[in-house]
Amino acid sequence: MEKKEILYEGKAKKIFKTDNKDELIVYFKDDATAFDGQKRGQIENKGIINNKISNAFFEVLEKKGIKTHFIKELNKRETLVKKVDIILIEVVIRNISAGSLVKRLGIEEGIELSKPIVEFYYKNDQLGDPLINRSHIEILELADYEQLDEITVKAKKINRVLRDFSKSKGVDLVDFKLEFGITSSGEIILADEISPDTCRFWDTYTKQKLDKDRFRKDLGDVESGYIEMLQRITGKNKI
Amino acid sequence: MEKKEILYEGKAKKIFKTDNKDELIVYFKDDATAFDGQKRGQIENKGIINNKISNAFFEVLEKKGIKTHFIKELNKRETLVKKVDIILIEVVIRNISAGSLVKRLGIEEGIELSKPIVEFYYKNDQLGDPLINRSHIEILELADYEQLDEITVKAKKINRVLRDFSKSKGVDLVDFKLEFGITSSGEIILADEISPDTCRFWDTYTKQKLDKDRFRKDLGDVESGYIEMLQRITGKNKI
Repeated sequence: MEKKEILYEGKAKKIFKTDNKDELIVYFKDDATAFDGQKRGQIENKGIINNKISNAFFEVLEKKGIKTHFIKELNKRETLVKKVDIILIEVVIRNISAGSLVKRLGIEEGIELSKPIVEFYYKNDQLGDPLINRSHIEILELADYEQLDEITVKAKKINRVLRDFSKSKGVDLVDFKLEFGITSSGEIILADEISPDTCRFWDTYTKQKLDKDRFRKDLGDVESGYIEMLQRITGKNKI
Repeated sequence: MEKKEILYEGKAKKIFKTDNKDELIVYFKDDATAFDGQKRGQIENKGIINNKISNAFFEVLEKKGIKTHFIKELNKRETLVKKVDIILIEVVIRNISAGSLVKRLGIEEGIELSKPIVEFYYKNDQLGDPLINRSHIEILELADYEQLDEITVKAKKINRVLRDFSKSKGVDLVDFKLEFGITSSGEIILADEISPDTCRFWDTYTKQKLDKDRFRKDLGDVESGYIEMLQRITGKNKI
């Protein structure tokens, strides 16, 4: 397998083509952004840590029969993945109130929700990734009803698996964002990443934040939060 | 029927108790607000015009078997209505792209939508009436699933009736906001008002705006837009 030209550079990752048209290489950067790119910075070794954490989560999901784009880790910052056409919907699942939910609904942070909340956001940087509903998705033709039902069912299942797995590591999975893609054979699989960049993780006992909120809210010691998550999830604290 | 003390004063209306515990009096004010109350003003005779337009629409709906809070017009600015507990969900139906939809989805104004869009907003001034979805409604306990389905079905039916009626008057019903309430006997009925304050109306041929967008966007001649709508809907142009 040969690494070819860059296909796309995002805020936290670069994507490269390979000599196999159905496979891509994801390269994890240390760049961090928040608040629709208004806040920018770097978190040391974030790319290395997120690559490892995300792959560990994908492996847990694959073992539970949930298909993801993950093929294999190539090196510290790079992973080989299945090429998909990304569905332009960010699916957010929430187990505990935090972040934009708290602002939107005027509720307190840290409330355990009686049932997971499912939200759809339009993956569109220029528009600031706005909250959308099924009517909007239909008009924008982002997915048809059947696909949206499939995504929703998958997202809820992923939540159950990740929440239980995190819990066993002493971590509360507060909320997270998923992206799905369609393979060349038309299958919907999980893509993007699962990391402290895309999830809120709180220590179950101390409620300490182990995710990007440390960067967003200037809580300090950002890297050690990511390393702590790496240690909890993979058992290793070396990067 | 005797008018009693004021129960509530909103941005565009006052509500008074009566000697009948199941009936209230709505008083329509000339006050106009926009952008979550950031813009404030008065539109001459708006209260008189909206009282008449809203009642005309309610009568059209009642004739089609859709239950509303309307009982009878008492005078220029006052109408007797059934008392309801307002459900704190603003239901917005859109037939043509305009307003916040255009901003949220990054689409052009004036696109005829292939299917009406249904949106739910949390009726909460302090939070700026945010867009919400079914998950949020469940967590906030604003309505249960059955009630929400009933409201959605009613709103779509109301849209069909009002759109056809407006069309027959040379007016495009672009979008509108509805509020529902629960009567003392537990029935869900349409409440609030249907007027140029709560709907976007465009002249079918000239596409001239005949609604509160004239106020929002400083298009001038606000009152004559309201009077034009009164004339179209009721056949009368005297207030």
